[in-house]
Amino acid sequence: MPKIAYVQMKVSAGHPDVNTKKILRFIDEARTQGADVVIFPELAVSGQMLGDTGLAIPFVRDCENCSAEIMAASKNITVIFGSIMESRSERFKVIETAANKRWIDDPVVIDFSKFHEQSRIVSTRGISTPFKITFQRKKYRGAYIFDARENFVDSRGLDFCIRFSSEPFNINKKISGDKINCPMIKVGGIGIQNTGKTVFTFDGSSAVFNSRGEIVQLAEPFEESLNFIELDEIDKMTVLELPEVSEAEKIYRAISYGVKSFLEQIGMKKVVIGVSGGIDSAVAAALYTKVLGAENIVLVNMPSVFNSETTKGLSEQLAKNLGCKYYVVPIQESVDWTVKQLTERGIEVSSFVKENIQARDRSSRILAAIAASLGGGFTCNANKAESTVGYATLYGDEAGFLSALADLWKYQVYDLARYMNEKIFKREVIPQGIIDIVPSAELSTAQNVEEGKGDPLKYPYHDYLFRAFVEYNLSPESILRYYKDGELEKEIGCEAKLVEKYFPTAQDFIADLERWWKQFTGMGVAKRIQSPPILAVTDMPFGARVESQNGVHFTKNYLELRDKLLAR
Amino acid sequence: MPKIAYVQMKVSAGHPDVNTKKILRFIDEARTQGADVVIFPELAVSGQMLGDTGLAIPFVRDCENCSAEIMAASKNITVIFGSIMESRSERFKVIETAANKRWIDDPVVIDFSKFHEQSRIVSTRGISTPFKITFQRKKYRGAYIFDARENFVDSRGLDFCIRFSSEPFNINKKISGDKINCPMIKVGGIGIQNTGKTVFTFDGSSAVFNSRGEIVQLAEPFEESLNFIELDEIDKMTVLELPEVSEAEKIYRAISYGVKSFLEQIGMKKVVIGVSGGIDSAVAAALYTKVLGAENIVLVNMPSVFNSETTKGLSEQLAKNLGCKYYVVPIQESVDWTVKQLTERGIEVSSFVKENIQARDRSSRILAAIAASLGGGFTCNANKAESTVGYATLYGDEAGFLSALADLWKYQVYDLARYMNEKIFKREVIPQGIIDIVPSAELSTAQNVEEGKGDPLKYPYHDYLFRAFVEYNLSPESILRYYKDGELEKEIGCEAKLVEKYFPTAQDFIADLERWWKQFTGMGVAKRIQSPPILAVTDMPFGARVESQNGVHFTKNYLELRDKLLAR
Repeated sequence: MPKIAYVQMKVSAGHPDVNTKKILRFIDEARTQGADVVIFPELAVSGQMLGDTGLAIPFVRDCENCSAEIMAASKNITVIFGSIMESRSERFKVIETAANKRWIDDPVVIDFSKFHEQSRIVSTRGISTPFKITFQRKKYRGAYIFDARENFVDSRGLDFCIRFSSEPFNINKKISGDKINCPMIKVGGIGIQNTGKTVFTFDGSSAVFNSRGEIVQLAEPFEESLNFIELDEIDKMTVLELPEVSEAEKIYRAISYGVKSFLEQIGMKKVVIGVSGGIDSAVAAALYTKVLGAENIVLVNMPSVFNSETTKGLSEQLAKNLGCKYYVVPIQESVDWTVKQLTERGIEVSSFVKENIQARDRSSRILAAIAASLGGGFTCNANKAESTVGYATLYGDEAGFLSALADLWKYQVYDLARYMNEKIFKREVIPQGIIDIVPSAELSTAQNVEEGKGDPLKYPYHDYLFRAFVEYNLSPESILRYYKDGELEKEIGCEAKLVEKYFPTAQDFIADLERWWKQFTGMGVAKRIQSPPILAVTDMPFGARVESQNGVHFTKNYLELRDKLLAR
Repeated sequence: MPKIAYVQMKVSAGHPDVNTKKILRFIDEARTQGADVVIFPELAVSGQMLGDTGLAIPFVRDCENCSAEIMAASKNITVIFGSIMESRSERFKVIETAANKRWIDDPVVIDFSKFHEQSRIVSTRGISTPFKITFQRKKYRGAYIFDARENFVDSRGLDFCIRFSSEPFNINKKISGDKINCPMIKVGGIGIQNTGKTVFTFDGSSAVFNSRGEIVQLAEPFEESLNFIELDEIDKMTVLELPEVSEAEKIYRAISYGVKSFLEQIGMKKVVIGVSGGIDSAVAAALYTKVLGAENIVLVNMPSVFNSETTKGLSEQLAKNLGCKYYVVPIQESVDWTVKQLTERGIEVSSFVKENIQARDRSSRILAAIAASLGGGFTCNANKAESTVGYATLYGDEAGFLSALADLWKYQVYDLARYMNEKIFKREVIPQGIIDIVPSAELSTAQNVEEGKGDPLKYPYHDYLFRAFVEYNLSPESILRYYKDGELEKEIGCEAKLVEKYFPTAQDFIADLERWWKQFTGMGVAKRIQSPPILAVTDMPFGARVESQNGVHFTKNYLELRDKLLAR
């Protein structure tokens, strides 16, 4: 029985030359180590998220040429790999994708006696769902059957099956096998791939499961590896106990890997971060420092008259703890100048407008200029709660080359801060004061942190309300029904009794619900259209969520229910 | 034989309440005027581009309730309309969409004797391709058969057929019938619908064709109308001669309609436009002034030391011609201050960085502040050539609430300028000097217009090269092959002999090709991710084009061909 190699390979989407070079190296290595078969992740030649450019005919041909090169190199070893190709051709046996639900009618028969002389290409187009492939010996004596089926349930009598599972990481992803009565090898790629607005990390999740669906081998997540397994040994191997991994650790691994890979991919070596003394920018600063080294990070505090001594002090302390270059660049003169230029021309500038002038002055005037001067970029530190309701200023704190935290709810940002202090830095790099202070944009006297004032968001409740909007696709009608039935906290997952505490009356509750629903489906959408790319950690990050700028709508049932509740 | 009404209705995506109110009004009106049947556009209740929010169950129920209301209101008239609904149910006969390729197995039979008592809902989900519906009397005597088929070619013996064609406008769209041996009524909606990044206009294109496929009735494009036709008369009616419409006129109609509708939809009443004395901002100024009235437009010229007296004069002249409020707000002090704040801290600011500081100062500091103070928005005036290669500054000229010109090549912007002067304003509102001057960003002495210097883009060639990249999905390999074969101008559609004129040697040609391909697939993508929404006039606008930020790739065949050409 064969010795099988499987490669948890880093795949560069859109770069078949880079991928092929690596595949050829792994084939050599696998052969040298005596493998009979070597298996690569789904679409290892082309990558999955290619965009339209990746479907131009010369690009597809380029991938086909790479595939031919790989096949030619598969002497004395069977290579199973994936690529895009134009269509079924004489030269290649093509298995269509799960995405378009068409499968080969005839299984490809690999003659067992010529086992070492054959390779097969598993081709999928675009982004496909994982599918399963089996080597089967039952039907044809002396031959393996290379078969792809959609609803694969039972495989009694098969030698083993392969599952290509290059799914992006998400924090709820579980590593598990199926009871399919034969061993299964899961092969996933690592790296990052993006759809423009959303950047996905791929953790690999390559593993071997025995016939009972128990895990016996697991590749290190987010690391490239060439792994071997003896087919006959699988059912005799010790079952692995998978350690519990905390959510914060999962998030840290994915985000630090995603940031590192994204910086490498776009060739960015210097990063500028505006630090306010708040939690989001502090977590961003710690994260980028860990990824890129303190010498490549510049932290900039940009106070106006509204910034407190407390937060200025905390920013400085943060920079000191991390060992990063630190600038203080005040914005008050510039903000005053802008207001003066407008008022001189008879344009009245309200205090709300002045808030946004400050935010844009920081990002578009200062951070962008510093980043460009250093040949780097500046970060967007928005979290998912702010992004949901557009609680950020376009071209201000909503700007940057990447939003690394924009798929994290506020409580996850805090968890990440504590996790990094304890487990990564093993000391208090993010000052406890930053973790303890009330979240505030400090853009007006109404947000004076010294007086305990801050953002209008009550995160212990709004984090969960917004998650219900975004990740569960719940609308006000459903929310209000749960509220009426006293089920809301349970349904959205926040702490019990919280709703009553924050909203003494139905009127209060409804006013808050409508305020944020309007923001979410109104200005929130407009801002997200122009937001930086978002690093995903869930299966419903912004960018992947389909959004049209259609304005606010309340259903008739909602309005009736609301009126009933308000009339009580 | 029945009298048929068809409604070219303005559909508000995501607002079933608004649409239903209007549908009910049109049903009443059609009944009053003696129609037996009234036909509404595809998905008239729900709209097509809904995003995930529009697929939440309460929203779908809301649409279903609206549908029930419409059915109840269809006494003495048959109503054919479309909406989303959860799935097939007892109450509604559902026809699935073209998008997921499933069709009803049994045609819905409308009993001719009860013709006035029945209504049918044509349901499609999401964006569907147009499909065809027939009333047929052949199969069942005394009954109409309401039938939907995918590949509808011949309908001999049918009374007539309906085509729902709510396709977005594009400049290459043709109004034409098919020779299907029975009359056809095309019903399309008007309005705008968007997918977030891309805003599509719908012109309606509602029309009646006789059995020979000739047009006999045509609704005014972009206007809501209730139209009537006597089924028996169709084949006796005079065939219409459709007037030739110039490309500039088509573009003007679509863009002015799109801008007007978008402003209405987001409730924006004041618009601020940065005017540089160049063609793009001048066209934007004229367009918005026509749509919103001069009293609601504010033009702002923001000179630095690099702006010439010529362009400052032209800007002022433009404002005078249009009668708009005009401000001059210099940026030099602020730019100098920013550079000072950086250099004082030891950060060196290059002249390239200073260019972008100027651009961001204009949009993010001044225009955004003025717009917010007036309760309005500011425009992005980028054209498609600039957008293709990211020849614009993020948070600078790449910012705004809408890019109305970003699906127009530079030559189309010029055509539009001439068209508006001649046909819309009937006088030179856009000064001839703006049309004649060399296009220039005026961000450095290298772009001094007084010395005839300007942008690095040679529009008479690059417009067409970039169109080949974007709209024909051609990659450098294809371009270089055409170049080698002397076929390039013909293939991409630019003026003959232009390539030789601009690029005396293969080396020059290749350097230019690679420069812009790198920009298009590199920084261009990064900038488009954060660009404002784009108003579409083609079937391949940015936003609709799928793009991943995967970096630059040249195929092996390209590299070989290049080396061969360079070695000559």
